[in-house]
Amino acid sequence: MLTKNQIKLIKSLFYKKNRQRHGLFVVEGEKIVDEVINSDWEIDCIYATDDWAGQNAISISSSELSKISFLKSPNKVLALVKIKSFKNVFNSSTIIALDQISDPGNFGTIIRSADWFGITNILCSRDCVDLFNPKVIQSTMGSFLRTNLHYVNLNKELKKHKEYELFFTTLEGESIDVLKRSSNKIIVFGGEANGIRDEILKNKGRKITINRFEKSKAESLNVAIANAIILSRL
Amino acid sequence: MLTKNQIKLIKSLFYKKNRQRHGLFVVEGEKIVDEVINSDWEIDCIYATDDWAGQNAISISSSELSKISFLKSPNKVLALVKIKSFKNVFNSSTIIALDQISDPGNFGTIIRSADWFGITNILCSRDCVDLFNPKVIQSTMGSFLRTNLHYVNLNKELKKHKEYELFFTTLEGESIDVLKRSSNKIIVFGGEANGIRDEILKNKGRKITINRFEKSKAESLNVAIANAIILSRL
Repeated sequence: MLTKNQIKLIKSLFYKKNRQRHGLFVVEGEKIVDEVINSDWEIDCIYATDDWAGQNAISISSSELSKISFLKSPNKVLALVKIKSFKNVFNSSTIIALDQISDPGNFGTIIRSADWFGITNILCSRDCVDLFNPKVIQSTMGSFLRTNLHYVNLNKELKKHKEYELFFTTLEGESIDVLKRSSNKIIVFGGEANGIRDEILKNKGRKITINRFEKSKAESLNVAIANAIILSRL
Repeated sequence: MLTKNQIKLIKSLFYKKNRQRHGLFVVEGEKIVDEVINSDWEIDCIYATDDWAGQNAISISSSELSKISFLKSPNKVLALVKIKSFKNVFNSSTIIALDQISDPGNFGTIIRSADWFGITNILCSRDCVDLFNPKVIQSTMGSFLRTNLHYVNLNKELKKHKEYELFFTTLEGESIDVLKRSSNKIIVFGGEANGIRDEILKNKGRKITINRFEKSKAESLNVAIANAIILSRL
């Protein structure tokens, strides 16, 4: 059984300010909740229908799950997980920096691809979408558990760390093969609408581009796509 | 001014059966509508606010545009475009085949990436999402104009065309580098939930996989991501 207050709390976690206030976020579905259980992240509470195979859940009906789920097709279980802080990102040779990525699906997919290619350190401008947004969490398919992600004043942070070579992903630049010759690097990706903002592009760095088929009339690639193609070449 | 019947018609085009009945679909936003105008696709009607720079539109207010738009942030113009039929896809050395891709964002992004890499011939199983779904069209960012896409009985079609070597994108297979050594090829991608269906995998072909960082615990890549990484290697 769900109380009105529980429903109210869970639904409120759609919004960042409420997630921060309660220090909680929502994870849904068998696969990802199983991954959380087997991780070092702390679970506050699990709500599940009786056909869920796990333990220690508050039993709810399918229609109750529909009420609290953020998914179109709710999948057996919803967990409230405690937000935790991350460790320093400047401890690896390759860092991804995201500037103004606002689409939750793109943001989550970037984290998922990065995880596949073994890259976990990510810097984000403060106006990127929130990691704990339910759509972001679901798009990562559990990869948020292995990410190390900081929201920062991106321009300031990039200026501070001169030990890293900067690469800006743009529509006109050098071939992405130049990445292979760099040891410590930060690869910057800009948002769908406007790309990387000008003040960041003014930093010392190299512009890189994914080669397009010469006769192609396509104007650009989706940012999550560009990110994955570049990571696949490292 | 918009009439009630116009609003009703446009909103009805969210559904495939209505798109097929009227032979029309919706394209929105300055960039993509401009591309349609400059293409060989036939426009039925354009609705635009007065700040749209184009011509021959029915003038509507912002609030009227919000009423008919499928976007969260409507952007000046909405066009009704006539559905057209495509030419034969078996006229190129590389063809993409999509099996049960149901997410409109993924489907549209695959078309966009394919266009970037110069691949326009696409086969789809009949249970893939419809190309003319508004979310698919918007995700293609105009690349649907340059695609050549057929909904078919995919298994039957693959069996018929023995002149093509088949490659199945799976989680366990050979490195994608083998693609380079094949001249006529069909690369098959399966849906998010279940991958490529078994009956298709039974055809003679090679399984290929995108190499994961060896210590990575990520389970899979998004299908639009896998698609783009593979196309970038051709």
